[in-house]
Amino acid sequence: MSPPAPLTVALVGAGRMAKIRAQALSYVDSITIATICDTEFASATRLASDFGTAATTDLGAILADPVVDAVILTTPTPTHARLICRTAEAGKHIFVEKPIAGDMEGARQAVDAVEDAGVQCQVGFQRRFDPAQLKAKHKIEAGELGRIEGFRAVSRDAYLPTVEFLRGSGGLMLDLGIHDLDCARFLVGEVYEVSCIGAVHALPELKEYGLFDSAVAILRFSNGALGTLEAGLCTGFGYEARTEVLGERGKLRFEVDSRTPLRHYTTEGVSFTPLMNFGERYHEAYTAEIRAFGEHLQDGKPVSPDARDSLESLCLALAAQRSLERGTPVTVSEIRDEVTT
Amino acid sequence: MSPPAPLTVALVGAGRMAKIRAQALSYVDSITIATICDTEFASATRLASDFGTAATTDLGAILADPVVDAVILTTPTPTHARLICRTAEAGKHIFVEKPIAGDMEGARQAVDAVEDAGVQCQVGFQRRFDPAQLKAKHKIEAGELGRIEGFRAVSRDAYLPTVEFLRGSGGLMLDLGIHDLDCARFLVGEVYEVSCIGAVHALPELKEYGLFDSAVAILRFSNGALGTLEAGLCTGFGYEARTEVLGERGKLRFEVDSRTPLRHYTTEGVSFTPLMNFGERYHEAYTAEIRAFGEHLQDGKPVSPDARDSLESLCLALAAQRSLERGTPVTVSEIRDEVTT
Amino acid sequence: MSPPAPLTVALVGAGRMAKIRAQALSYVDSITIATICDTEFASATRLASDFGTAATTDLGAILADPVVDAVILTTPTPTHARLICRTAEAGKHIFVEKPIAGDMEGARQAVDAVEDAGVQCQVGFQRRFDPAQLKAKHKIEAGELGRIEGFRAVSRDAYLPTVEFLRGSGGLMLDLGIHDLDCARFLVGEVYEVSCIGAVHALPELKEYGLFDSAVAILRFSNGALGTLEAGLCTGFGYEARTEVLGERGKLRFEVDSRTPLRHYTTEGVSFTPLMNFGERYHEAYTAEIRAFGEHLQDGKPVSPDARDSLESLCLALAAQRSLERGTPVTVSEIRDEVTT
Amino acid sequence: MSPPAPLTVALVGAGRMAKIRAQALSYVDSITIATICDTEFASATRLASDFGTAATTDLGAILADPVVDAVILTTPTPTHARLICRTAEAGKHIFVEKPIAGDMEGARQAVDAVEDAGVQCQVGFQRRFDPAQLKAKHKIEAGELGRIEGFRAVSRDAYLPTVEFLRGSGGLMLDLGIHDLDCARFLVGEVYEVSCIGAVHALPELKEYGLFDSAVAILRFSNGALGTLEAGLCTGFGYEARTEVLGERGKLRFEVDSRTPLRHYTTEGVSFTPLMNFGERYHEAYTAEIRAFGEHLQDGKPVSPDARDSLESLCLALAAQRSLERGTPVTVSEIRDEVTT
Repeated sequence: MSPPAPLTVALVGAGRMAKIRAQALSYVDSITIATICDTEFASATRLASDFGTAATTDLGAILADPVVDAVILTTPTPTHARLICRTAEAGKHIFVEKPIAGDMEGARQAVDAVEDAGVQCQVGFQRRFDPAQLKAKHKIEAGELGRIEGFRAVSRDAYLPTVEFLRGSGGLMLDLGIHDLDCARFLVGEVYEVSCIGAVHALPELKEYGLFDSAVAILRFSNGALGTLEAGLCTGFGYEARTEVLGERGKLRFEVDSRTPLRHYTTEGVSFTPLMNFGERYHEAYTAEIRAFGEHLQDGKPVSPDARDSLESLCLALAAQRSLERGTPVTVSEIRDEVTT
Repeated sequence: MSPPAPLTVALVGAGRMAKIRAQALSYVDSITIATICDTEFASATRLASDFGTAATTDLGAILADPVVDAVILTTPTPTHARLICRTAEAGKHIFVEKPIAGDMEGARQAVDAVEDAGVQCQVGFQRRFDPAQLKAKHKIEAGELGRIEGFRAVSRDAYLPTVEFLRGSGGLMLDLGIHDLDCARFLVGEVYEVSCIGAVHALPELKEYGLFDSAVAILRFSNGALGTLEAGLCTGFGYEARTEVLGERGKLRFEVDSRTPLRHYTTEGVSFTPLMNFGERYHEAYTAEIRAFGEHLQDGKPVSPDARDSLESLCLALAAQRSLERGTPVTVSEIRDEVTT
Repeated sequence: MSPPAPLTVALVGAGRMAKIRAQALSYVDSITIATICDTEFASATRLASDFGTAATTDLGAILADPVVDAVILTTPTPTHARLICRTAEAGKHIFVEKPIAGDMEGARQAVDAVEDAGVQCQVGFQRRFDPAQLKAKHKIEAGELGRIEGFRAVSRDAYLPTVEFLRGSGGLMLDLGIHDLDCARFLVGEVYEVSCIGAVHALPELKEYGLFDSAVAILRFSNGALGTLEAGLCTGFGYEARTEVLGERGKLRFEVDSRTPLRHYTTEGVSFTPLMNFGERYHEAYTAEIRAFGEHLQDGKPVSPDARDSLESLCLALAAQRSLERGTPVTVSEIRDEVTT
Repeated sequence: MSPPAPLTVALVGAGRMAKIRAQALSYVDSITIATICDTEFASATRLASDFGTAATTDLGAILADPVVDAVILTTPTPTHARLICRTAEAGKHIFVEKPIAGDMEGARQAVDAVEDAGVQCQVGFQRRFDPAQLKAKHKIEAGELGRIEGFRAVSRDAYLPTVEFLRGSGGLMLDLGIHDLDCARFLVGEVYEVSCIGAVHALPELKEYGLFDSAVAILRFSNGALGTLEAGLCTGFGYEARTEVLGERGKLRFEVDSRTPLRHYTTEGVSFTPLMNFGERYHEAYTAEIRAFGEHLQDGKPVSPDARDSLESLCLALAAQRSLERGTPVTVSEIRDEVTT
């Protein structure tokens, strides 16, 4: 049996996520990056030279190029919906960073465009490919925990993005919290209602934009489970990422490891080198995610999480974000019912 | 220097907590139990014979006995306020189980009675004497964490009390959650607002009484910190008690240990003997707490937490309980302002 | 059923171990210390006043006192054999610090004296009462590990005793190593041969006395298992005590815990308060050990480890000590066969 | 600056190690495998088809091929010396599995051949490239531990190789123990004397060949440090690999991690998925090792560990193996002085 033909992709965007995606693609022999496209030619060229690909600013040419099988969209959130629609209309498969769009209206248009064009669209929730989270999923589905009763998640980045980035990102719940909210849906099930409160600890000027660098939330799941969630930026004591699922008969926990198994003991305690950020923590997941995208396209199987699934995660994140801003509980259906497709 | 005269106490109540208190007192040479008093003579006698004391049903006689320096009240929550008032009026010092009362009105009367009589009254928040929590307090006060930004607490008992007990206890937040809420006040500071939601997982009949066996909450502290809290009864995977404090420069965590350092490794993982309940977890704290009560009385120094301090913890717990029942955020001042002393 | 009559003991010696024993006895209600006896009256008086007992220098009077049921010998190793003989001849039961004697000849005389007098004699291997080691023993006896194949032990004290003490102690293997060697016998079985090498790291003047502050050994057990052992004084990175037993189907490990479950996380790692010495590590064991001594005497059951059992541990320690000094493997039978009782 | 020309290698041997090497090479873009060569054509072809290379049985052709820059020797130990000599004489650089030879005579011939030919020869001690071990090395060299006083190593494989393999391997110390002995030299310094004893636990028929499946050893380092070492095959409780270095001021430990950070808690304890073998544990090290080989050749810098360095590790392993067979301490110089180059 001969291996499937390699997949040719174009990378759109040349920022931080593009670099992570290009790096992950370098470990996947069956996918080749043909071109890196960015509105700033210098950025595109810089990344392209690191990875030995062509560089361009002309997205139209990419979408018209019959060699390109799929497009990987790593551009800022506000551009997602429009670029998904355009790429789908060009008949190319799509991999897009989360969230699928910055609002429900864009998200619904994107889902419609993808489904109308009959292309595949995978959204970049890389944690779904994290070996620990995947194994947790298998244990839960195998009934090892019995009925699921609770969920706890903490995600705290160790650095502070620029105010400009934060403003464009849609807020803490839409940019960071959405990873844990998607994980909650993946491991426990749909969330019915969320209450979220926030604070500004690191950068006072965030307040004038109604932005938060820290937030905590409680979740009511449709199946009766309860959850807590915490998200933070600029955590002084370092990067945190912890997930716990509580069941009738057992509890699963996975959290940030140290970089190596080395431990240094003194009379003061024990020191080690902690992981510093999501790039390190989800190193394997990023590779597995893009490899799965390629394999599913080559095998003609549906990718996951797809556009419609990811729209639900967006919906939940928007509910959390609204609760954060408004200070009262918000049901997910309130968000879902505002726009009809 | 001769040691201070030993303290003579009477134990009122002969249930589960009375046993824990009598056990702890057996490690404290400077305090002697003279009598155990319970409305059921058989219960009083049984416990009295285990610990070599007299037994009675006559509280009046105890309160009139000049040999008795202090009374330890281990009776159900609804009796606390009344018994505190009566004991204070008899001029005896008081140690009472938490919460100081089942409602704000009783609590204010108790505080007034104590202060009017000029006796001392310590409330049984034993975690304030837990070596780990105490050391955390010292680190926070020494500024090792910098500004405090967050708090996380989980307390899950492994068993289910009777419905009758649960009804009398005032609810999950008043009975169990109050320990973590008092800890939040002790380590981080006053809480301004709390949102709490609950579920019934283990015992469906709780629903008809408006009771919950599981709850999660988010907390807004007056100093800007944010918190999450989780409380549960009848946890199938075992007893949990975890506290975390997050600061600008560090994070403190203490949680349930195993019973011994023994670890058993197989190809399946590692097993050990976990602690099973608060009696085991806070073994040292119970002894240190009652020893401190005795020492402060003997030295003529104010006990802690005293009645007024504990009234604030009750106030916070009542806010959490009301939020749990009502489903919306509740400010602590809403509770505090309802009754005026 | 009435409780057994309390046991009255005399404590002989008023040094470091006497203090640990007196402290442990203070937690055991059924044993009372009548007198503390030391050749230096000031030492005896100081300790006696801390624990509210009489003080004396007159051992003869103690041995003649019909009130005294048993004598606890905490004097230096070279005095053990002689004092055991004298106490046994006086018809008193004996608790003596390890090792039972400083040489085989003394040990055999002590065993003979005890057995001739028909008194009981327990030797102070407190680790046999450590909850972790006991639980390990139960698991091994229950067959949970299958056939036992290996043993590993590390004991490193964090401080350096005086050269004078070290000279009197019989050497590193006789004083410190014997704890792990007794544990090896207790958990795995008899040792056939030992090879031991040593070094001087902390105190160069030890060399002129042929003493070592660090040693490692390998053990061949009669049942085919293999072992490693390490002993050290003056460990710069802190107190260590680790035991591992390897079986066909599993491995047991127990080692030094932290003092509390508190962990302090920063970007550098995690710090905690480690245990500092055997007094802290075996706190519970010391109490359980002396309580068991009392209970066995009161119940008329044989104590354990008794004199004959402890003579075997001494024999093994002397073999290790000889190997350490000579640099070649030494069989335990070589030691055992040199003196015949 | 253009990247250096890629390196073309031939892989000699098509067994278990060849597969691990080919896999590692697949992550290193700058090295290309041209051919896989094995005396059994079917084996060569099978592996070659997995990795898309040519296959051959003709080593001569490979050595004569000007396209081949270096040869990777993964054949059994007894063939190493002869193949190194032949490859060196053909002017090709060499990467060879440890040990460099099965005896000192072969090893000296190999070193001579390499040095005479002026080619480079790296020996496959992959642990020297393990991130944890490397970081330990840096800390030791930076003086973070102060004077080094001790070393502890445990390596236990979870499976049993064939008796045939074990006979050809030179024994437990030469095949498995040599990894920890090389690590001891790398982290602590040269070893002066070793005492080693062994046992047969899993496969009784090993005894008739004088082979062991378990061994423990003690080490005397030239700098005064002491060490313990344990090696085992067919460990029923799973794969173990632990290294500890003890210094005046601190202790380093690194051991086998779990496969993911997932932990499953029940009332029985906590389970996780342990790593199963050296292939999993040293996954990263194998890639880093072969990448370093390529980079050093391309940069014209000396590789490490080179033939002469690896001869010292062999020498130490042969001393350990002789002690294991003879039952008495063996000095490394005894081995070193038997053959003169």
